[in-house]
Amino acid sequence: METFGARYHPPGTPPGTLTRHGEGGATRICLLEYNQEHFSETLIPTPEQCRAAVQNDWVDWLDVTNVHDPAAICALGETFGMHPLAMEDILNSGQRPKVDFHEKHAFLILNLPYLSGKDIRLEQISLFVGDGHLLSFCSGDGKAFEPVRERLRQGFGRLRTRGVDYLLYALVDVIIDSAFPLLENIGEQIEDLEDQVLENPDKTILTSLHQLKRDLLLLRRALWPQREVISRLIQHDAELVSEIMRPYFSDCYDHSVQVIDLIETYREMLSGMLDIYLSSLSNRMNDIMRVLTVIATIFIPLTFVAGVYGMNFTDYPEHPWSMPELHWYYGYPLIWGVMIAIALVLLAIFRWKKWL
Amino acid sequence: METFGARYHPPGTPPGTLTRHGEGGATRICLLEYNQEHFSETLIPTPEQCRAAVQNDWVDWLDVTNVHDPAAICALGETFGMHPLAMEDILNSGQRPKVDFHEKHAFLILNLPYLSGKDIRLEQISLFVGDGHLLSFCSGDGKAFEPVRERLRQGFGRLRTRGVDYLLYALVDVIIDSAFPLLENIGEQIEDLEDQVLENPDKTILTSLHQLKRDLLLLRRALWPQREVISRLIQHDAELVSEIMRPYFSDCYDHSVQVIDLIETYREMLSGMLDIYLSSLSNRMNDIMRVLTVIATIFIPLTFVAGVYGMNFTDYPEHPWSMPELHWYYGYPLIWGVMIAIALVLLAIFRWKKWL
Amino acid sequence: METFGARYHPPGTPPGTLTRHGEGGATRICLLEYNQEHFSETLIPTPEQCRAAVQNDWVDWLDVTNVHDPAAICALGETFGMHPLAMEDILNSGQRPKVDFHEKHAFLILNLPYLSGKDIRLEQISLFVGDGHLLSFCSGDGKAFEPVRERLRQGFGRLRTRGVDYLLYALVDVIIDSAFPLLENIGEQIEDLEDQVLENPDKTILTSLHQLKRDLLLLRRALWPQREVISRLIQHDAELVSEIMRPYFSDCYDHSVQVIDLIETYREMLSGMLDIYLSSLSNRMNDIMRVLTVIATIFIPLTFVAGVYGMNFTDYPEHPWSMPELHWYYGYPLIWGVMIAIALVLLAIFRWKKWL
Amino acid sequence: METFGARYHPPGTPPGTLTRHGEGGATRICLLEYNQEHFSETLIPTPEQCRAAVQNDWVDWLDVTNVHDPAAICALGETFGMHPLAMEDILNSGQRPKVDFHEKHAFLILNLPYLSGKDIRLEQISLFVGDGHLLSFCSGDGKAFEPVRERLRQGFGRLRTRGVDYLLYALVDVIIDSAFPLLENIGEQIEDLEDQVLENPDKTILTSLHQLKRDLLLLRRALWPQREVISRLIQHDAELVSEIMRPYFSDCYDHSVQVIDLIETYREMLSGMLDIYLSSLSNRMNDIMRVLTVIATIFIPLTFVAGVYGMNFTDYPEHPWSMPELHWYYGYPLIWGVMIAIALVLLAIFRWKKWL
Amino acid sequence: METFGARYHPPGTPPGTLTRHGEGGATRICLLEYNQEHFSETLIPTPEQCRAAVQNDWVDWLDVTNVHDPAAICALGETFGMHPLAMEDILNSGQRPKVDFHEKHAFLILNLPYLSGKDIRLEQISLFVGDGHLLSFCSGDGKAFEPVRERLRQGFGRLRTRGVDYLLYALVDVIIDSAFPLLENIGEQIEDLEDQVLENPDKTILTSLHQLKRDLLLLRRALWPQREVISRLIQHDAELVSEIMRPYFSDCYDHSVQVIDLIETYREMLSGMLDIYLSSLSNRMNDIMRVLTVIATIFIPLTFVAGVYGMNFTDYPEHPWSMPELHWYYGYPLIWGVMIAIALVLLAIFRWKKWL
Repeated sequence: METFGARYHPPGTPPGTLTRHGEGGATRICLLEYNQEHFSETLIPTPEQCRAAVQNDWVDWLDVTNVHDPAAICALGETFGMHPLAMEDILNSGQRPKVDFHEKHAFLILNLPYLSGKDIRLEQISLFVGDGHLLSFCSGDGKAFEPVRERLRQGFGRLRTRGVDYLLYALVDVIIDSAFPLLENIGEQIEDLEDQVLENPDKTILTSLHQLKRDLLLLRRALWPQREVISRLIQHDAELVSEIMRPYFSDCYDHSVQVIDLIETYREMLSGMLDIYLSSLSNRMNDIMRVLTVIATIFIPLTFVAGVYGMNFTDYPEHPWSMPELHWYYGYPLIWGVMIAIALVLLAIFRWKKWL
Repeated sequence: METFGARYHPPGTPPGTLTRHGEGGATRICLLEYNQEHFSETLIPTPEQCRAAVQNDWVDWLDVTNVHDPAAICALGETFGMHPLAMEDILNSGQRPKVDFHEKHAFLILNLPYLSGKDIRLEQISLFVGDGHLLSFCSGDGKAFEPVRERLRQGFGRLRTRGVDYLLYALVDVIIDSAFPLLENIGEQIEDLEDQVLENPDKTILTSLHQLKRDLLLLRRALWPQREVISRLIQHDAELVSEIMRPYFSDCYDHSVQVIDLIETYREMLSGMLDIYLSSLSNRMNDIMRVLTVIATIFIPLTFVAGVYGMNFTDYPEHPWSMPELHWYYGYPLIWGVMIAIALVLLAIFRWKKWL
Repeated sequence: METFGARYHPPGTPPGTLTRHGEGGATRICLLEYNQEHFSETLIPTPEQCRAAVQNDWVDWLDVTNVHDPAAICALGETFGMHPLAMEDILNSGQRPKVDFHEKHAFLILNLPYLSGKDIRLEQISLFVGDGHLLSFCSGDGKAFEPVRERLRQGFGRLRTRGVDYLLYALVDVIIDSAFPLLENIGEQIEDLEDQVLENPDKTILTSLHQLKRDLLLLRRALWPQREVISRLIQHDAELVSEIMRPYFSDCYDHSVQVIDLIETYREMLSGMLDIYLSSLSNRMNDIMRVLTVIATIFIPLTFVAGVYGMNFTDYPEHPWSMPELHWYYGYPLIWGVMIAIALVLLAIFRWKKWL
Repeated sequence: METFGARYHPPGTPPGTLTRHGEGGATRICLLEYNQEHFSETLIPTPEQCRAAVQNDWVDWLDVTNVHDPAAICALGETFGMHPLAMEDILNSGQRPKVDFHEKHAFLILNLPYLSGKDIRLEQISLFVGDGHLLSFCSGDGKAFEPVRERLRQGFGRLRTRGVDYLLYALVDVIIDSAFPLLENIGEQIEDLEDQVLENPDKTILTSLHQLKRDLLLLRRALWPQREVISRLIQHDAELVSEIMRPYFSDCYDHSVQVIDLIETYREMLSGMLDIYLSSLSNRMNDIMRVLTVIATIFIPLTFVAGVYGMNFTDYPEHPWSMPELHWYYGYPLIWGVMIAIALVLLAIFRWKKWL
Repeated sequence: METFGARYHPPGTPPGTLTRHGEGGATRICLLEYNQEHFSETLIPTPEQCRAAVQNDWVDWLDVTNVHDPAAICALGETFGMHPLAMEDILNSGQRPKVDFHEKHAFLILNLPYLSGKDIRLEQISLFVGDGHLLSFCSGDGKAFEPVRERLRQGFGRLRTRGVDYLLYALVDVIIDSAFPLLENIGEQIEDLEDQVLENPDKTILTSLHQLKRDLLLLRRALWPQREVISRLIQHDAELVSEIMRPYFSDCYDHSVQVIDLIETYREMLSGMLDIYLSSLSNRMNDIMRVLTVIATIFIPLTFVAGVYGMNFTDYPEHPWSMPELHWYYGYPLIWGVMIAIALVLLAIFRWKKWL
């Protein structure tokens, strides 16, 4: 995930300025219309044809993907009476999740996290909900919504029998729940790392720990505000969310809280693991130093003793004080005895100090 | 305890989808009916027979254990007018504790922690309370409720003389209080570790500390929201909890706060112990290094001195400058004197530096 | 202080079950009756005689100490219309401080900290305040209330001239204020440790730091909720605390906040000191390593030089390339010169690196 | 950024005392007047001429830069009915951002962060908004407002068609958004440091980490209160912000929250990186010590063996116990064999301990 | 600053007991009376004369310094209808800042921090504000109020023209603002330490860091509650603070928030610096160990080689296997070659590992 992650205009740019960011494929507008009996899915070639298309009693879902084209957004926005700042937000992905209520419609921005290879990515989803129609703008290819589209096509479940608020719920539910497979994956990585830290702490763990901490930090920044967004959606006194839909959005809210709970728990586990890792390093260092100390403190005195009897004072045998030990009959075995005694005493001391 | 711990459906699954998770024994439905005079305990073979069974003035407790069978939950749920999302939550254990109030009933999810060997496990208990009947769904075998069943059978205490809210209290009380034996056990482990850290810090402590921290973290995630659940139960303006039951639920609330207090205190104690452990490691390292340094710095100069007089300059006695020390009458005792003097001076320095 | 500290019944025990915990002396019930003119102090042999005794216009204080006897508590509780859960809480010491308001009375649980030798202990004080009478239950010997009893006996201060709420204030004030001598003592210990950490950090500090941190943590758990209790006492819209007593309880509240402030400040100071201690250890390690490094890096090259001229190549004088240095007239002084030069250069390097 | 950063008068100075701080260029007052059709930009030579100048139906923006001159501020303040404390705040830069609402006007203080070379600097912007006129006071040269001035000159966007609240929005928007390029820059620095910490941790990183942490800390202190300021601006029940401007200020609010989010995320990332850095250092230390230990523990015993056979006991061949090994025919190759064997065994042990 | 810092009576002492603490000079009561035209300053010899003295339409400021005399406080308190607990608080300095509102007066306790040499000290200021008179009690010599007295004497500023609430503001303003010079001083110390930590981290820094952290912690405890006090002063619905004075007290509130902001920022900076210091220590240790390792691992093998050729096998020339190297013509130069080669290879390895 990107550290900064937000797209913005230079300070002082007039509000509502629309700019193309990134490359991406062509913007694609797909209209899904349905009620209990009917369902149709049409590709809309130009944004201007949308208004006419949604003039009916059906539920209309304008599913816009690969949102990069300022012209298309501008046309769509003006057709549906979107606020210029909302259009700007749709194009400048990396916005903080939020919900704005207007007289006749609501505008939501949410972040959909997904795995791309081993990297966590965010797709910004903007939802514009009006009377009988919903516009969804995905900064990416909107693949995450495929199960919802399929449910509409198949007429499976309650989705086709309900209004636009049920569609809104279905999309928000997908966005919130898409964090679960990701977090399950991270949970498994954490359990793997946990075993490694305690059993075999090596340097690669540090990189993995750091990467996971960073991802969770950025994920938290992206997902934390969604709890507030859904809470405001439930509490809002408008006809946007009908009484019968409350338990569904409450369920979404519970899930968004659970996501935050998991992220926080993981973050604390990772912090704990870094402490354990540091302690393991210190333990290792102690082991290494203990070995060095034991070997060195045993052999250094012995080497000294050997060095003493390598001195050349004895070359002058007329001096009785010049290393008489060398003249002794059992001098050599005696010196070995002294050296072995020193070694044994030191070993005993080390064993008593529990260094061995 | 499982790091991730939550069961969920793939994002985009229609709400209210019921799936079997885990294996477990067969789902078992037991009906306990009672009032002040009567008590009966019947095993219900098929969920469809429940509705008829509870059509009376007695208090009816439908005690469902080993909740894994989607069909049974679905049949029970439809019989009692349960929300589809509630049914889903009953099956997908690992939910966050919560309470949902509906017009005629309330639905609670709580976590019952228990020890399985040395591991802490969670059993999800879902409670559905309506007028005169209570359904309890245990993800496990519901052994924890045995004392309540026994009190009903024996007619002991006030339980048989009161309504369904007293039964609800009795069950919630069991769930909350089951954390106490667990936390007492953890408290004893912490006291053991405390002594060990201060007296004899070895590597196994690290694993124990990490394990306890992790368990407390996951326990906190599971039990923290229960405080809020009971608080909402007390504050709710419905006939669910009668005035006379308020002090009882308040007591439950106090206990859930005490549980959280204990968990937080333990977590801080463990953090403190890790710091102490790290300091002990550093202390040990200092001890080891001090020994090495003292031995090495004493013998290295001595070995050098011995090395000097092991040089072969003296082989040419015609050179007056070639190691005349070797020719001295008292050369050898003198060199020992020098070496002992060096050693004593160094020892004095180390004692003055408080390294010995 | 005990880590777990709470007494509880096995989960599933009926509410209001009374059990004896601990040994302690015999429960002692003392009735103190007074008004502005009169004062009497009577030992009540059996709890049943209490009700009759308090039937008068005087202020009646039933001072119950060494609360371990379930029978006595049960009799007293039933006489005064206590809730069964309150009686259970009186016996199960280690409860979280709380206040429960009932129609005609209030029930408080507070913790009185005291020093027993060098250990901090907690005495649970339960106060039951009704119209004109106050029952106090001490889990210990209630010695802390002696000054209040003495003030009643002597008729000193305003205590005898006021109602039961002033008595309540006097007791609560003693309980809250008893933390001050304790915290002053801890404050002095902290200042001593502070000097030690900075001047002479040794291993015993670690144990002291840990002990203090632990005590403060457990003290905080025990005293933190008392702030809330007194705050609720002041805000409660009942006749329990008369208008004229508000400033007195406000003063208690200020003191309980000050106690929490002190505990938090001390905790942060101790955390800071552990950091300082760790830094001191690292500093010490650096000192030790520096000495080892300086000594070793100076003498190791010198020993090598001495070792070179201890080689026996020179034994074959017909080889001109075999250690001709040994044949030189000034060979030995020269080699000393080389060695001293090496040592001086290394010393200069170390001084330049500020290692000396 | 300055650690203290606030300018203040000595305690006890009468409120509203105006003092010159710093040097800076001359205070410059520029009047920009506009409505949909007209636009004029005039330099006002003396503050006294302002009142007359703004007496019209146009929107008047008095753009005051390099605010250092007490006399000018005093004259302006008295002309427009500014509170003496507001005038003091304009001159004493380093104030905490705030908004004060008065009957006919509002007074805002905001901080505009900008990069001066590699340093982050703050410019205090004070805004005084009355009916139809806005006074802006920049402690610096006000270069950040140039795009707004240019939009006015060019009549670009909606700015010229709206009232003074839109101008206020435009200026606040510039101030809030000016944090984005800065934070993007910091984000890039953090990503660079991240790579360095994991791949090649050297000492310069420490200085960079510290510098960034410090800057973010001071930036947070300066920008955190702006969220509150804008929130109060939106909630204020006055005619200051018209209904139509609410979404614009909400957008500003979202941006200020996003700025705080980014700062907090960065701060946590930097904390994490310091931990990683410390772990890397410990890892490095372990590597170094391992090398030393391996080399030393292999060669120290070998050197001892060599030392043993450098002893001079053999000089007296009549002693059969004096180093008979030297007399053996294969003594020398044998001793090499022993030494190589010792080395191989030690190497095997180190490889088994995974130190190699 | 004192760690404990609070003066208290033994638990159980009757409320309102007045005791002398500390020594200090004699209590001094000075009456300053003024209105727009007049000003008089009189020393009041006995507290009883105060009541009569303040019976006029002027603003009366009874400025009591060196508050140690229980008799004087008691007499003053009874004259002005002070609550006994307020009198106790005036004498027992070290109270938590607070404000108590009574029907006809308000009672404030605030802490004035000042520098005494290099130590931070606190002076407790108690303010008793009634209708037309203000009593200020300083635990010290009240030197900080001298500028206010001087402003009264000179009639400078608005002070003489306003009521008692403006006097209250002037005094509170002095108390709050007196933290600024202190914090500026600490800020400079922090900047000095910052440079030192990064450039030349030595042991004295640890003491300075600890001292500053401790002072800021105690300062926070003393000043944090003042924000709340001033906030309550502003929000209080009494005639104490007139509408016209609100902006002045708001300004005080802003300053008290700024003080807290600064303290918190400084505390975080110091925490960061301790981390940097610890990292620097580790870095230093790495440097030291690297030098030791490089020197030791180069010379230890060389010394071994020299040791080998110091062995005495060669003394028996009839053994062809006894150190034939010594017999070689170019043996000695060869062995130097080998040793230089070993050293170069090791140096190359160290350079490749970036240890040099």
